[in-house]
Amino acid sequence: MPGTLDDDDLASVDAWWRAANYLTIGQIYLRDNPLLRRPLRATDVKPRLLGHWGTSTGLSFVYAHLSRLVRHTGQQTLYLAGPGHGGPALVAASWLEDTYGDCFPAVTRDEEGMRRLFRQFSSPGGIPSHASVTTPGSIHEGGELGYVLVHAFGAVMDNPDLLAVAVVGDGEAETAPLEGAWKGISFLNPARDGAVLPVLDLNGWKISGPTVLARKDPARVRSLLEGHGYHVLEVGGHDLPGMHHRFAAVLAEAHERIRAIQHRARSGQAPEGVPGWPVVVLRSPKGWTGPGVVDGVQVEGTWRAHQVPLSGVAQDPAHLRLLEEWMRSYRPGELFDEQGRPTALVRSNDPEGPLRISATPHANGGLLTRDLVLPPTAGYAVEVGQPGATRAESTRRLGEYLRDVYRANPTTFRLFCPDETNSNRLGAVFEASDRTWMEATAAGDVALSPSGRVVEVLSEHNCHGWLEGYTLTGRHGVFATYEAFAMVSASQTVQHGKWLEEAENLPWRAPVPSLNVLLTSTAWRNDHNGFSHQGPGLIQTALTQRAGVARVYLPPDANCLLEVADHCLRTRSRINLVVIDKQPQLQYLSTGAAREHVARGASCWPWAGTDDGSADPDVVLACAGDVVTMETVAAAELLRDRLPQLRTRVVNVVDLMRLHRPADHPHGLDEFSFRELFTDSVDVVFAFHGFPGAVHQLVHGRPRADRFHVRGFIEEGTTTTPFDMVVRNRVSRYHLVLDALENASRLPVGAQDLRRWCLAQLERHRAYVVEHLQDLPEVRDWTPAPRQTGAQVTG
Amino acid sequence: MPGTLDDDDLASVDAWWRAANYLTIGQIYLRDNPLLRRPLRATDVKPRLLGHWGTSTGLSFVYAHLSRLVRHTGQQTLYLAGPGHGGPALVAASWLEDTYGDCFPAVTRDEEGMRRLFRQFSSPGGIPSHASVTTPGSIHEGGELGYVLVHAFGAVMDNPDLLAVAVVGDGEAETAPLEGAWKGISFLNPARDGAVLPVLDLNGWKISGPTVLARKDPARVRSLLEGHGYHVLEVGGHDLPGMHHRFAAVLAEAHERIRAIQHRARSGQAPEGVPGWPVVVLRSPKGWTGPGVVDGVQVEGTWRAHQVPLSGVAQDPAHLRLLEEWMRSYRPGELFDEQGRPTALVRSNDPEGPLRISATPHANGGLLTRDLVLPPTAGYAVEVGQPGATRAESTRRLGEYLRDVYRANPTTFRLFCPDETNSNRLGAVFEASDRTWMEATAAGDVALSPSGRVVEVLSEHNCHGWLEGYTLTGRHGVFATYEAFAMVSASQTVQHGKWLEEAENLPWRAPVPSLNVLLTSTAWRNDHNGFSHQGPGLIQTALTQRAGVARVYLPPDANCLLEVADHCLRTRSRINLVVIDKQPQLQYLSTGAAREHVARGASCWPWAGTDDGSADPDVVLACAGDVVTMETVAAAELLRDRLPQLRTRVVNVVDLMRLHRPADHPHGLDEFSFRELFTDSVDVVFAFHGFPGAVHQLVHGRPRADRFHVRGFIEEGTTTTPFDMVVRNRVSRYHLVLDALENASRLPVGAQDLRRWCLAQLERHRAYVVEHLQDLPEVRDWTPAPRQTGAQVTG
Repeated sequence: MPGTLDDDDLASVDAWWRAANYLTIGQIYLRDNPLLRRPLRATDVKPRLLGHWGTSTGLSFVYAHLSRLVRHTGQQTLYLAGPGHGGPALVAASWLEDTYGDCFPAVTRDEEGMRRLFRQFSSPGGIPSHASVTTPGSIHEGGELGYVLVHAFGAVMDNPDLLAVAVVGDGEAETAPLEGAWKGISFLNPARDGAVLPVLDLNGWKISGPTVLARKDPARVRSLLEGHGYHVLEVGGHDLPGMHHRFAAVLAEAHERIRAIQHRARSGQAPEGVPGWPVVVLRSPKGWTGPGVVDGVQVEGTWRAHQVPLSGVAQDPAHLRLLEEWMRSYRPGELFDEQGRPTALVRSNDPEGPLRISATPHANGGLLTRDLVLPPTAGYAVEVGQPGATRAESTRRLGEYLRDVYRANPTTFRLFCPDETNSNRLGAVFEASDRTWMEATAAGDVALSPSGRVVEVLSEHNCHGWLEGYTLTGRHGVFATYEAFAMVSASQTVQHGKWLEEAENLPWRAPVPSLNVLLTSTAWRNDHNGFSHQGPGLIQTALTQRAGVARVYLPPDANCLLEVADHCLRTRSRINLVVIDKQPQLQYLSTGAAREHVARGASCWPWAGTDDGSADPDVVLACAGDVVTMETVAAAELLRDRLPQLRTRVVNVVDLMRLHRPADHPHGLDEFSFRELFTDSVDVVFAFHGFPGAVHQLVHGRPRADRFHVRGFIEEGTTTTPFDMVVRNRVSRYHLVLDALENASRLPVGAQDLRRWCLAQLERHRAYVVEHLQDLPEVRDWTPAPRQTGAQVTG
Repeated sequence: MPGTLDDDDLASVDAWWRAANYLTIGQIYLRDNPLLRRPLRATDVKPRLLGHWGTSTGLSFVYAHLSRLVRHTGQQTLYLAGPGHGGPALVAASWLEDTYGDCFPAVTRDEEGMRRLFRQFSSPGGIPSHASVTTPGSIHEGGELGYVLVHAFGAVMDNPDLLAVAVVGDGEAETAPLEGAWKGISFLNPARDGAVLPVLDLNGWKISGPTVLARKDPARVRSLLEGHGYHVLEVGGHDLPGMHHRFAAVLAEAHERIRAIQHRARSGQAPEGVPGWPVVVLRSPKGWTGPGVVDGVQVEGTWRAHQVPLSGVAQDPAHLRLLEEWMRSYRPGELFDEQGRPTALVRSNDPEGPLRISATPHANGGLLTRDLVLPPTAGYAVEVGQPGATRAESTRRLGEYLRDVYRANPTTFRLFCPDETNSNRLGAVFEASDRTWMEATAAGDVALSPSGRVVEVLSEHNCHGWLEGYTLTGRHGVFATYEAFAMVSASQTVQHGKWLEEAENLPWRAPVPSLNVLLTSTAWRNDHNGFSHQGPGLIQTALTQRAGVARVYLPPDANCLLEVADHCLRTRSRINLVVIDKQPQLQYLSTGAAREHVARGASCWPWAGTDDGSADPDVVLACAGDVVTMETVAAAELLRDRLPQLRTRVVNVVDLMRLHRPADHPHGLDEFSFRELFTDSVDVVFAFHGFPGAVHQLVHGRPRADRFHVRGFIEEGTTTTPFDMVVRNRVSRYHLVLDALENASRLPVGAQDLRRWCLAQLERHRAYVVEHLQDLPEVRDWTPAPRQTGAQVTG
């Protein structure tokens, strides 16, 4: 493609840009009179003026030129607007490209459609102001700044023909997630992945102050980007048509450079480290082409252009006149015909069909999603006869399973992990794939190469964001992380949840693969790392999401984990949190029982309790989470052995949302099933993996909710022994026995002795652990006594 | 100070380093035989080997040389270990410097103390494995990676004589928060602030893979750091004593450069932008001086040195022998005398008294904390006669108050905000102080200069982390942010909470100023920004913290906000979340009533309801949060007007923790007071600012908790009108009336009519808002009708 604009191209690019800008202003200001057929009146103007003008023209400028690039090259292109609050620019583009009406048929590409387009923007019953899930062509919201590059990189992984153009605002460029995202190129293999072209849009200003990068010596900005490994292309100014010519040239150069890098890599030449991917640094005024001086104050090119540059139009006739002049300065007569349709001149800038940027199927990844080929879980199962007789590292089995998911789905599945794949016992995946790595390699490196597809970087923000980009473009994956540090990217979990929540309301958005988050190296077994590593807080965050989206699974052992994984990898448009530790742990359920248990979400474990189902038990021992399940089974055994007349029932919850009322969550147990498990009125000692408040809120409104006595992580931790962790948080087997005795509906003789014995055991533990620096042998080596059982689980 | 080591300095630096390394190994491995008086036996070794050797020697190496620098220059120095899991290195340093015993008297500086030192490390009843709150000289835990630079920058702000040396691990350097933290120098004024010297410790490896920066061409690393504005000094290798000489020279050069920068700035020369602050890039082997090859595999200089390089010592006599040889390689006989005390040679490297790095009072900032001078709140109050008769932007009043806090405390108070000070209506602070800014300024800049002390950067991570560093060194501040984006730094809130929680258990840690977080631009009034900006999730996170630390305040108006602010700025060692919106809002309480209300934390508002206190009301309308309080007051008025026989009580909760049971939180209302407010058994319609689950968990266990019908943010949002937001989330006045009617203990005649009317009003709203793009006039302009009242609040 030629780097020089000929007259035709210049005319069409410029007309398209003017049209987009006109439509942007219309969206911000007008409720009527979209074509200015009559002089603007105050009543044509919306009662509330909402929107962000400042960044919109820059976004449209880039878009106009990209369209030309696509027209000339046929390049499949995804456009991500980091300054997502420039939503009207993206909406305008989609309307101009005639994709908007495909999604919103009422918004036709004519005068009436334009009126609706304007009216609906930022309006009740309309669309939001950001480049959000309602915007065709978008996989990025841009409201919470920082993630445009991670989304772009995730989108192009294993997507060799895709170019993701990511506009980075200079406000966004100050955020930590964005600064941490430049290094995506260290993990991008040009032979196999697509390309990301960042456009750093230095318009100079945030809401009310300047930006760091815009005020730096340009040589320093170059130095910074070159340090990350980029080849920097710069363009700046506000002269027209000069800027058109210069930007077209730079864009062409960037694209040629990308193609050359890819061509070299795909010609079978050995990779030579991180290639010099281009980045464009664009310096143009904030609010470019908008009002220059308003009421004697400079607006264009300053922070005052951030939102609505003329705010008094409804009250001030002078402002209203300025608005009309401003809109007419784009010469709408050249841009829209008598019916309000874009003229041929404007349309001549558009690519054809699915090459139109807003029409790319990559931005509606569900359209491209294929089911994963999943191996049968039984092949990875732990052999379980007697419940609890064996120990295994559950996540190691999952690792073997994921290894074979990699093998069966070589280009549509990835594991993202902050340098913890081995630590989390998932290392078997390295038998199927190396870690991806474009930086230098060295003798002694293990499972590290450009062809690898396991993605490790010590950044939860990158891992989370890359997986979002990967799934939103229709591929599958898992983000595995230390449980406590899942909070590092909690805000991404929240924002991605919002995206999925809203997508549910849009029939044209095809469901995408779920965001699967494996929380391992959990609070209870970070006894070796200490308090900073002990925090099950993401569960709390997940509970704030809309029910359609959020799921929390707490498999107690390997076979349940495998069933949960198999389920989650088949779901669409969910956020699935799966919580299980990596250390050797007791294995309870056979494959068949595990499948039944996971399908139910919560079951009785009759072999663990003494309840024969003939009457209500005296107390229910419930549990959710691997370590606390072990404590519960141990407590039930103590009660059985030492107080055999007490009727106890053990209930394990693997799908936490089962506790919700059905009105609040589709997984919620109906009242009948809930009572069947937890009875009507018997007290429940509930040992929970996370903070007790999570269960408190879930059971609110259930019959006699205050009979749920929840033990869980109460923010007590340090570097200590595993059993000391449960003692410190008062969820040890002894504590659970004490709780059961305190709350049982009936107490057989001997209860008082047992109580004293438990207290003595706790004292014994405390003395022993300090003396011997390890746990009591009877705890350390404990496994449940073999028992004659029928079914391992019952409903 | 001389950049060249003479023989004496070399001997003492090297001996000190060897001693620290010896003590590090002892902490990881030994429970007994600390001085190796007899050959090591398996029983001398701990049953569980915990700790991180790989990073420890690098940390000690830097420390040893820093001590020398301090000795020669008298430089007050704070040391922050980014790789905080190198805790044993820091603990060893403190023991060598004889500060450890000041904090833990049982751990004496002799053989018995050394035995305890070893034994307690990572052991039950002992200390955790990280450079945590239990480590003298530390303000940084380093377990969750990414925050070492933000803590360092926060610590030196307004601390002109302090040098904060921040060791950045190359694993940590991959995290987003760390990458976003280099730009701290763009906000550091050498005339007024201290200096940060980052030492980027490229030892090459994370847990099991290489690091990006270590594998980059060194020229790129230089380019990256120079792009941020640093002057790069490099040193690398593992030869000894060569490394000692080279590192001493580089450290001296760095320090001289810092002094020169400060001298120039403090000599009254005009600032010239960001000076070229030095950064040291240190390349040394991971696990330096540790076992080279173990069982035929290279350990030193690889990821295998990350944790415990010889893991089989208890079982494998050959490993045990290797361990002993390794420890003896440091020549302990030269390092410790017959009593186990550090020899004069080792001690000769230590600075004197409070200059010892582990003794710096800056790391125990409570010792340096002075109370703020706080202006009387009345001076900023809104004049309130009739409750609800006026509207005001509450945070504007707070801004005026904070302006005067700035004036009265010119060097010990700062506001940190992601470019939203004006947006959050706190702009009055700019009358007292500019924004701090070391990058270039330009004509038209407003309130921007190197001498400013308001800190704005579009990074919640930086703002939060800087405030942490600022408060941990004994100064006061506020972090003000959009409510939704407080989740961006939620993990920092969690980790800082853990620090404060643990500090409570250490009598030698003096309480520090609280971390005050103002959540404004809230979910309910981000109707102009849309769904991404609507998320009250941080409250949920705060509820997971230990009761000693977490507080959540929801002032309903300006006067309550001022009282809450006054209170929070006087507290110590808390995390205070204060949630209030910035838009014009109704003002309810006079200064006196606000003071009483905030002191109580929750009160009846008798003027709003119809309850005369003579008997239980028929229904309680409770509320917490500004917007939902308005809806509640409006609902109560509707009930009063249209169903006057219904007895309603309005309760407002400003201190959310009042809802906790007293056993669970020191602010928890005792049973009697709780019943006085909420009765024993009457149903409570609770309109809550945040997610309903928060209140559900708080009231769990209160009498008949299921009578609490909580309405709140149920994750419904978009760009719309203010009232549409409360309608979408079913917490509008009409919804609250419907709830009251559904749950009241007694329904007067007319209830059914009112019910129908409310449903009709909701329909009317939905039609009106889509037609007119704004709210119904009767809602938009509503203020409570004037009423004869007695006290504005009652207990």
